[in-house]
Amino acid sequence: MKVGVVGLGSMGFGMAASLLRAGHEVCGADVNPDAVARLRGLGSAEWGPVQALVVVVLNAAQVEAVLFGPQGVAGQLAAGSVVICCVTVAPDFARAMAARCQALGLHYLDAPISGGSVKAADGRLSIMASGTAEAFAAAAPVLAATAEKVFDLGDSAGAGSAMKAVNQMLAGVHIAAMAEAMTFGMTQGVSPARFMEVIPDCAGTSWMLENRGPHVVDGDYAPRSAVDIWPKDLGIVLEAARAARFAAPITAAALQQFLAASGQGLGREDDAAVAKVYARNAGLTLPGDPA
Amino acid sequence: MKVGVVGLGSMGFGMAASLLRAGHEVCGADVNPDAVARLRGLGSAEWGPVQALVVVVLNAAQVEAVLFGPQGVAGQLAAGSVVICCVTVAPDFARAMAARCQALGLHYLDAPISGGSVKAADGRLSIMASGTAEAFAAAAPVLAATAEKVFDLGDSAGAGSAMKAVNQMLAGVHIAAMAEAMTFGMTQGVSPARFMEVIPDCAGTSWMLENRGPHVVDGDYAPRSAVDIWPKDLGIVLEAARAARFAAPITAAALQQFLAASGQGLGREDDAAVAKVYARNAGLTLPGDPA
Repeated sequence: MKVGVVGLGSMGFGMAASLLRAGHEVCGADVNPDAVARLRGLGSAEWGPVQALVVVVLNAAQVEAVLFGPQGVAGQLAAGSVVICCVTVAPDFARAMAARCQALGLHYLDAPISGGSVKAADGRLSIMASGTAEAFAAAAPVLAATAEKVFDLGDSAGAGSAMKAVNQMLAGVHIAAMAEAMTFGMTQGVSPARFMEVIPDCAGTSWMLENRGPHVVDGDYAPRSAVDIWPKDLGIVLEAARAARFAAPITAAALQQFLAASGQGLGREDDAAVAKVYARNAGLTLPGDPA
Repeated sequence: MKVGVVGLGSMGFGMAASLLRAGHEVCGADVNPDAVARLRGLGSAEWGPVQALVVVVLNAAQVEAVLFGPQGVAGQLAAGSVVICCVTVAPDFARAMAARCQALGLHYLDAPISGGSVKAADGRLSIMASGTAEAFAAAAPVLAATAEKVFDLGDSAGAGSAMKAVNQMLAGVHIAAMAEAMTFGMTQGVSPARFMEVIPDCAGTSWMLENRGPHVVDGDYAPRSAVDIWPKDLGIVLEAARAARFAAPITAAALQQFLAASGQGLGREDDAAVAKVYARNAGLTLPGDPA
């Protein structure tokens, strides 16, 4: 199958590499020519006609530009091709993109991804997918090459993005709550290391706590996933919540902490760096801080 | 060993029953004579002199009354006996109780428990314990009979309560976050049942989400742990945070949601009923709601 991947960041590059490994003919596009060249080194082709287009850019504005901008590719795709949109976007936006693609005779799979860059490189992502049976069928080889788990969330675009929004809401809150509890513990004599020895065995644990907590203990803020993801993703959540007249006070509080982290210049650090906001506010010294 | 258990609610009764099963001579006390009679039915003795006193009452005021009130028992214990305090209290309060007990020649183990009533009945609690080596040694038979896991958090009272506060902070936030995300999902077309099918396999999951989420899906608010626990326990957390000049905005937001649940008359329902606050605020119908 000929597959185009637009957006060769850590997630898109891993997906493209997984597609190559699975034997597909792959071409990649990115604003960064180095990323394209690196994929060529793995055996990708020059950009050309494709049967499936995987979109793995940063946000909704980039999705719209990729598909329908001045150099948009939607108009170049043959009828019956499938657009697989892996970007975290608002459910309403996913529905709008699907409608515009369908008007061109294209299938559209609303397919946000989760799992991080390591799983992307290994072809073991989780994909929260929704779309018509035809969209699922056309996307099947791509899903098989890139995902360990595909949640079929129904036959219309938007449902995948809705579940992704729900998951991001929890994930963001849990990262900030980990940071809040770990630093609160420090004020009570509980060291970050001791926190991570005990809490994962207790009712207070979460997937994110166990994943991100060690970054704080190690003072290691190399970005596996960056702080600046969260103002974007929790922004999508709270925008959808506002439109639905849904009050989400805990998510709103978590967003403010990520905004403060970003405002302190930590936007490109690992998202566990939200702990630094709490530490600075309380005069605490985290592992790795200058003494 | 002769063990007295004061407070025969669901946790204390289960601990007393576990101590009886382990072959200890147990006597129980509670303001509710039915609970005492029920324990007598399992083979407990009349109240009398004990070597270990397990305190499993509701709050700090009750602990102080049990130990040092007009009918307080601390003065009746022989020197070298151990007081094992399993109540969630502020670390400073635990330190104060330990000092007063030690002044009477008593050992004091700061030993908050977690795990819920089923594990209490099975003798499989988690205990976050701190105290002198002598306190641990004197308490060992009680810990062996009631706990599956004992975290040794150091040689001074207060550390156990500090870790318990950290754990409760996360547990309370995660319950409210589960409710917030599940009901937000409903506004986006994600049913509670679908939420529970997908999220436990994703990065957004937490121990509390997996434990309490099914209560909302089933519309079952029989109290395994009640809403009114959280204004108390998050109150302890925020009181300690305030004293340490520690800003905890996510915990504060979660507390408000539990207060709203209590204010709506849901205080004695299962704590998953905090979902009803979100549902009422957004005009949503939860499973089990009248149509």
